[in-house]
Parts: sequence; structure tokens; C-alpha cells
Amino acid sequence: MVDLSKEMVNVKPRVDKLILEELLPKSSSIHEVDLLYSMMRDYPSRRAKGTRPFMCVTACKAMGGKEGDAMLTAACLEMFQHWILIHDDIEDGSEMRRDQPTLHKLHGEALALNTGDALHARMWGLLAGNRAKLGPEKTLQIISEFSRMVNETTEGQHMELVWVKENNWRLSESDYDEMVMRKTSWYTVASPCRLGAIVAGASESDLEKLLRFGMKLGVGFQIQDDALNLVGDPSKYGKEIGGDILEGKRTVMLLRLLEVAKPDERKEVISIMDKPRAAKTPEDVARVLASMKQYDTIGYAQRRARNLLEEAMPILDSVKMKGDRASVDNLKAVARYLVERQW
Amino acid sequence: MVDLSKEMVNVKPRVDKLILEELLPKSSSIHEVDLLYSMMRDYPSRRAKGTRPFMCVTACKAMGGKEGDAMLTAACLEMFQHWILIHDDIEDGSEMRRDQPTLHKLHGEALALNTGDALHARMWGLLAGNRAKLGPEKTLQIISEFSRMVNETTEGQHMELVWVKENNWRLSESDYDEMVMRKTSWYTVASPCRLGAIVAGASESDLEKLLRFGMKLGVGFQIQDDALNLVGDPSKYGKEIGGDILEGKRTVMLLRLLEVAKPDERKEVISIMDKPRAAKTPEDVARVLASMKQYDTIGYAQRRARNLLEEAMPILDSVKMKGDRASVDNLKAVARYLVERQW
Repeated sequence: MVDLSKEMVNVKPRVDKLILEELLPKSSSIHEVDLLYSMMRDYPSRRAKGTRPFMCVTACKAMGGKEGDAMLTAACLEMFQHWILIHDDIEDGSEMRRDQPTLHKLHGEALALNTGDALHARMWGLLAGNRAKLGPEKTLQIISEFSRMVNETTEGQHMELVWVKENNWRLSESDYDEMVMRKTSWYTVASPCRLGAIVAGASESDLEKLLRFGMKLGVGFQIQDDALNLVGDPSKYGKEIGGDILEGKRTVMLLRLLEVAKPDERKEVISIMDKPRAAKTPEDVARVLASMKQYDTIGYAQRRARNLLEEAMPILDSVKMKGDRASVDNLKAVARYLVERQW
Repeated sequence: MVDLSKEMVNVKPRVDKLILEELLPKSSSIHEVDLLYSMMRDYPSRRAKGTRPFMCVTACKAMGGKEGDAMLTAACLEMFQHWILIHDDIEDGSEMRRDQPTLHKLHGEALALNTGDALHARMWGLLAGNRAKLGPEKTLQIISEFSRMVNETTEGQHMELVWVKENNWRLSESDYDEMVMRKTSWYTVASPCRLGAIVAGASESDLEKLLRFGMKLGVGFQIQDDALNLVGDPSKYGKEIGGDILEGKRTVMLLRLLEVAKPDERKEVISIMDKPRAAKTPEDVARVLASMKQYDTIGYAQRRARNLLEEAMPILDSVKMKGDRASVDNLKAVARYLVERQW
């Protein structure tokens, strides 16, 4: 059996070192620019699991490519995660990220927003640097995959923000899936795998399989993430427990609750969820959570996540893997981990 | 003499058409994604002069390149302007843009922020599309120039935001120049010219000259822009007159005023400028403006802008121009226009 934490530790610190030591600027003699650089380095310096760069590097090796060829792209995936979290935290009004106050809580929204843009722009310049190892054609293919990935992510983010803004509760699980495939699946599973595969020189047909695999597994990952947001271990989770309720997030456990709860209970939950974040009390959060537990909707959602995992794995098995056995096993292990993880 | 408005009208509507008809998505069957697309198309649908894409296309032709080869890059420059203005308007708390309410005033900050990211990401994917006409190497060169351009712009933006946030008035004209070269010169002059030149196949030495030219001319442009913000024709300017005073912007006319005003007048101006935007009254704005007029600091700034123009033009003259005479004349005319324009 694969000891995944050990494998991930082989990649994540090297990706972080690459980002902090080589890819991002360290200091400037101009005070204000120096502050920008330190803000750009803040989220990259915080603890994170690094599943996306690990998946990218592991997919590359599993498909017969060299790890060193995928490292820059893997680091750019991690940078994507950093800048989009800075912006998401502003959009969602989040207060904690990776055990510390969010960047806009520390420096205000204007500076945090601009820092996200600065990291975003750096990411593309660094991606262009793949040219030295991979040549211009593969580099442009990687850039196009990144562009697709960010397009999808911003569309999913928009869907979720509009639901909250418009107090929209007429949503089915398939609406949730449409949103999460865009918001999460692309950048968490599909593109990390596909980027590794592109570096390794995979066929169009295998890239298409990785897309289908990624869409399903990404939804499973998000459901488990939503579950941990409700019942996770606060010392390991890194964000506020119950934060999704505060932020009005539409999750499978919530949509299921609205489906199965009695009418007046349904009405009460919606009236809590529609309150602005600042107006929600700890009792409100506890009330919604108690209803979810009463109707076992968290269990329901997690069973759905498991089903998605079991549907996704055979698609991954059908991809041609020319790499070493250990890497193939690691790729499968990290896929399972994304849905089965407890933190 | 070149009739510049006529020349610019030859480029801008075609760039807009390219963006709105071909490059940006038009509609989605998903309501929330459709809203995102309409928000992405908002600023591109508003009236704007289009000096940057015109400069790019004209530089390309002046240096012996084909107009059609530069159109996609010119359109991406315009898209850059669109997304960064969306974010700048949030950061600066601006209320009007191109005669209409800013995007975040219309839809809230969260959706506007995400729309900026969506446009930003599209821009890079479209830049990669240069490959078809220009080949992979030139395409990557263009992407690297864009990355440098956005890096510099975000650094300049950060400098300005930090000055306002920290109530910093210990600033010299050279601090202003350092900020504006980053915030404005790169994306307004240097990169539009350099990108046109890259498409045309210019030498490194000419690219370096265009950089020096762009740094000086960009500062001249920004000073004139700051002047129009104070004394421009409201029916043509498109932003609030006096908006920079409301937003606490450090301009040459303001720094000069603080240098030459009597101590108590200086103190009064600073106390007005340090008020948060919402606390500033129309009388406050009028008071600062009256002091500037009394000490002729707007005239002082505009004379500085003219000097920068006269320093910049000989550098442009030293660039090897292999294109047709009309394009060379147009390039020089638009350079002069950027500093001499009255709207």
C-alpha cells in the first residue's frame, strides 16, 4: 500500500522551494514594491498539502515523462491556487485561510486584490519559461490548457457567487455538479493530470479520458471538502469549521436537506442561510448542522462522493500508462485520497 | 498634418468588433454563466479611444510589419485595459468609468472581481492563438512581453495604493516617476510599441529604444491625464472630474503644490487629501483645485509633460522604421497626441 503522505512530501517542499527561491521575486529597494513581494509570498509560505502539483508530477511520471520536465508546470499550478484563493477569499468574505487570517484581512481588499493579479501575471510568464526544457509547441499547449482551466474556474466561481447573491435555492444536484465541475474539477483534477500528461507527450484520446475522469473525481473531492467544512478536525482543516454555512454556500448536504426536511424546517434553514454573513450567529450555524445530522445528509453526500470515485477510477484505469509502476500506483492513490481524506 | 481621429477610427472599431464578435463568448444557456459573459462584454462595449491598440498596429506597420499580424495582439492589449480597469475601479473605489457606473457599482465587488479574472485569463489564451499567424517563437515572445507589462503595472498600482493607505506625503517627483513608469508607461506606450515591433520582427536594440521612449512618454501621458481629471471637459472625459482628489491620488500638481504652498495651506490640503473618499465634500475638492490654480501647479505639471514629450521624440526618431511613411507619421502623431490631447 502506498504511503501517500510520504510521497507527497517528496514533491511539495521542492515545489515550494522552487516558487519561493527561484520563481518569485524576494525583495525590492522600493518599500511599496517590497510589500507587494512579501504579500505575493504570503500564501505560498503557508502550510498546504500540495495535492495538485503532486498529481501533475505523478501523472507525468505515470505516463512515461520525466519528473524534472513537469516541475515548473506543477509550481505554476500551485501559484494558480495561491492567487485564486486570494481573490476567492475577498469574494466570499472569508476570514481564515490555512490557519491564518486571509490576505485581505491582513492588508485590506485593494492591496490583496492587486497582489492576486500580480501573482496571476507572473504565472503566465513562468509558464512561457517551459520553452527551455519542452520547446515552444508543448509550452503553448500547456498555456492553452491553463487558459481553459482558469476560464472554467472563473465560470464556476461566478455561478456560485450569483446563487448566493440572488438567494437562489431552486437548485438541483445537477446544478451543483455543473457548478463544481467548473469551479473545482478542472483545476483540482482534470488539468493537473492533463498537464502532466501533456508534458509526457500523451495522446489526445488519453487527454480526453483524463478530462472525464477529472470531472467526476473533482465533484467527489468537493463534496468531501464540503463535508470536512462541517465536521472536520479544526486543528487540521485550516479554514473555519462551518464557514460554508456562514458564506451561504450551496452544498449537496444542504440541497439534500432542503429536499427531505419538513416544510417549516426547510423554511427555517433557508431563512438562516439567506442572512448576510455578519448577521449569522453561532446558534444559526449549529441549527443548520443539527438538521443535516438529523436527516443524515452529510452521510448522503459522502456516499455520493464515494460513488463518483468508483465511477472515476475505471476511466483512469483505461488511460495508457507507460511509466513506472510506483508512479501509476501513486496516481491512483492520490485520486482515492482526494475523496477519502479526513483532512 | 495627420488627422489622428480619422486614423484611430480605422483601428478601434475593428479591434472592438474582433473582441465582441470573435474573441469573447456571447451567451450561455446557464443563466449565471450568461451573466458573467455579459459582464465581460460590458467595458469592451463602452466608448474608449483605443490609443493602445492603435499604437500597437501603427508601430507594427511603421516597422515594416503587416497590420493583420498585429490585430490579435492589439485586441489583447485592449482586453488587458478592460480587466485591469475593472480591478482598479474596485481598488480605487471609483464610481464612474467611460460615462457609466463602474462594473462593481452595477453588480457588486465579488462578481466584478471575478469578471476581471475571467477576462484576464481569456487574454492569455487568445495571445497563445497568435501561433497560427506568427509561429510559436514569436508568440512566446509576445506572451513574455505581456507578462513583463502586467508585472510592472501591478507594481505601480501597488505603489500608488500603499501611498494612499499609509497617508504618505513624503514623496518627490522622482517617486512619482518611478510609480507612473510602472503603473502607466509600460502598458500605455512601451509595450504597445514593443509588441507591434516584435510582430514586425524588430531588433533587440530597437526594442530597447522603444522601452526608453515609452518610459518618458508614458509619464507625460499620465501627467496630462491627471490634468484633464482636474480641468477636463466633463462631457468628453468619461470619469468624474476631480475624482483623483476624491481618491487621494498623488499627482505632480499636488506634490508641487505641497512644495510651494505656505505651511498652513500645505497642512490644510493634506488634511483634506487624507480624508476617506466618502468624507470629502465638493467644497474640499474645490479648495484643493483653487490652491492648484493659485500656484499654477497644473501649468507647471503640463510644462513638465511637454518636456518629457520633447525628450522622448528623438528616441523614437532613432528607431529603424522600415514601414511606409504614413504609418511612421501616424506613430509620431499618436505619441504627440498622448501628451497634447485635451480629452
